[in-house]
Amino acid sequence: MKINNVPTRTLRPAPDKRAVDIIDQTALPHEFRTRRLATLDDAAHAIRVMQVRGAPLIGVTAAYGLALALKHQPDDAALAAAVSTLAATRPTAVNLHWALARMQAHLTPLPPTARAEAAWQEAAMIAEEDAEQCRRIGEHGLELLLPLKGKHRRLEIMTHCNAGWLATVDYGTALAPVYAAFDSGIDIHVWVSETRPRNQGLLTAWELKQHGVAHTLFADNAAGLLLAQNKVDAVIVGADRIAANGDVANKVGTYLKALAACEAVVPFYVAAPRSTIDFDCPSGAGIPIEERSGDELRVAYGRDVMGQTSALRQLPEDEAVANPAFDVTPARFVTAIITERGACPATTTGLRGLYPEHCHD
Amino acid sequence: MKINNVPTRTLRPAPDKRAVDIIDQTALPHEFRTRRLATLDDAAHAIRVMQVRGAPLIGVTAAYGLALALKHQPDDAALAAAVSTLAATRPTAVNLHWALARMQAHLTPLPPTARAEAAWQEAAMIAEEDAEQCRRIGEHGLELLLPLKGKHRRLEIMTHCNAGWLATVDYGTALAPVYAAFDSGIDIHVWVSETRPRNQGLLTAWELKQHGVAHTLFADNAAGLLLAQNKVDAVIVGADRIAANGDVANKVGTYLKALAACEAVVPFYVAAPRSTIDFDCPSGAGIPIEERSGDELRVAYGRDVMGQTSALRQLPEDEAVANPAFDVTPARFVTAIITERGACPATTTGLRGLYPEHCHD
Repeated sequence: MKINNVPTRTLRPAPDKRAVDIIDQTALPHEFRTRRLATLDDAAHAIRVMQVRGAPLIGVTAAYGLALALKHQPDDAALAAAVSTLAATRPTAVNLHWALARMQAHLTPLPPTARAEAAWQEAAMIAEEDAEQCRRIGEHGLELLLPLKGKHRRLEIMTHCNAGWLATVDYGTALAPVYAAFDSGIDIHVWVSETRPRNQGLLTAWELKQHGVAHTLFADNAAGLLLAQNKVDAVIVGADRIAANGDVANKVGTYLKALAACEAVVPFYVAAPRSTIDFDCPSGAGIPIEERSGDELRVAYGRDVMGQTSALRQLPEDEAVANPAFDVTPARFVTAIITERGACPATTTGLRGLYPEHCHD
Repeated sequence: MKINNVPTRTLRPAPDKRAVDIIDQTALPHEFRTRRLATLDDAAHAIRVMQVRGAPLIGVTAAYGLALALKHQPDDAALAAAVSTLAATRPTAVNLHWALARMQAHLTPLPPTARAEAAWQEAAMIAEEDAEQCRRIGEHGLELLLPLKGKHRRLEIMTHCNAGWLATVDYGTALAPVYAAFDSGIDIHVWVSETRPRNQGLLTAWELKQHGVAHTLFADNAAGLLLAQNKVDAVIVGADRIAANGDVANKVGTYLKALAACEAVVPFYVAAPRSTIDFDCPSGAGIPIEERSGDELRVAYGRDVMGQTSALRQLPEDEAVANPAFDVTPARFVTAIITERGACPATTTGLRGLYPEHCHD
């Protein structure tokens, strides 16, 4: 990823191992601002208020949050408490729990005095692995996009929410194939859904712009028309959790785009690292759906005429609001799942074929 | 319709026949403000900037706009010019053109001196007919809703955009059956989509509240989840234009809700007066789709801490935005079309059965 043409990453550990710097995504797309996370509470807060967001980046931030906690209190009770604080920040993202479980399994057998250093190293390894996985998702996804070239003047991709490099350590998941295509010289254009209520599409537009990729923002409501009008070659989204049968939990609104893609006979791809697949969850029916505050619809944020961040009330406080953050796209609407190992059908057999080590029976 | 428990209408002609008072819908849901339209330009402006909106109310407002124009200049050239000014305000709504054609056919044979008074009377008749048609749509729609009672604690209806009394002279189209149910003592709850980018769902929430109907607002993206979770007994929307084969042009996002309703096996009803059906338009492919300014996505409106209307920038001016205002729902996803004459299948045969006078062959 590049910001102002300078290669960088979304999460940068301080050389003294006492903090990590993140991009405050709540200030985007208006302002590029970094924040230093120095404590467990800093990390938990950053995940909770979505200064960092995107399933992979949440996992890595939680791992570093644990490392920061153990600097001060490395005993068993403190380890368990820190894991439980971080696990409670966001209920749907499975990588968060996956990263915490991996850290806990690695650290518990160690003597408390060795834990802080080991935690830091393990968090760094998770971050490296995430970047490498995303790079490979880009390569595998590009193979699926190449045959779609030539139907339009440019390769036309639709995405939802932000599953680009801002949601990961680098490259992104859904957008990794887009960047791989762009970097290999393919003329590509991305249809970016606004992604109400939190408008993560504005983040996607911002990060595509940093990298120089052509794109157009649209209201989520227009996704069906754009697909029906044959303006899209493929839809690619990320995932917050993939059940063992290929059902996909992702940002609310994903399901509607999958239905419209199916109706328009446009391939619908889900790109996500292995850690997103929950082999213990048999189907989408078992995935908890996070209900977020109705204020996400009642209040609008933006920049006022002075360029300052400001809020406006759009709906009275006493108006009832339903605000589920995710929905579940049944596997039958998913053309393929793309992971760091390759692409597979969104079926139990497909996922087990890609990850045979998870065939327990 | 009631505002603060006082029966009223959205458009009220002044007793001296020199103006009509409208509700300025751009000030809602924060402020109830009326505006007086005294000239052709007032009426054209009110339609163009959506102070009045909703296909039926646009038609009635245009009819009165023509009457106001003829007060000052009743000759043939002025009549034609006024029709053309009003016709250019919104391209998709067919009632606008229907109302103008009816006015023009009625007025052209008359001597210029008689036109102003005749225009006023004809506009009043269109308004009366609209209110009566909506009342009947409510009755016919209620018959379709009654068999759906009992699946949930309350009758659960989803709607999109605003097709309530604010979009008509009285009663509404999509919401007319809801008010008919409520007024007959049925426990009813409405799922109200936000309807980005212009948030007409906030108008729907406001008008339902005036009438005392329970409702919950949700981001358009959540429509698929709510339907898949079996929280909805029926979806009812209005229409801006219905083609002769039953394809429905309505506010962008309607199509996605129809797809999700079909998948969830929930009936999807379209409620609209006869004037919305364009028997000269063979299918949805022939309906022009209005493209509106991208600023509708770039700028958010609401109330600041002082309670004043204010605007915030959400996206830089140079970000490309696609903003189609309507989409087309193929007839096969529409369970029935409800008009003032009753309900019929969304097919050429169904519509001709309801309006045999339009069977030309």
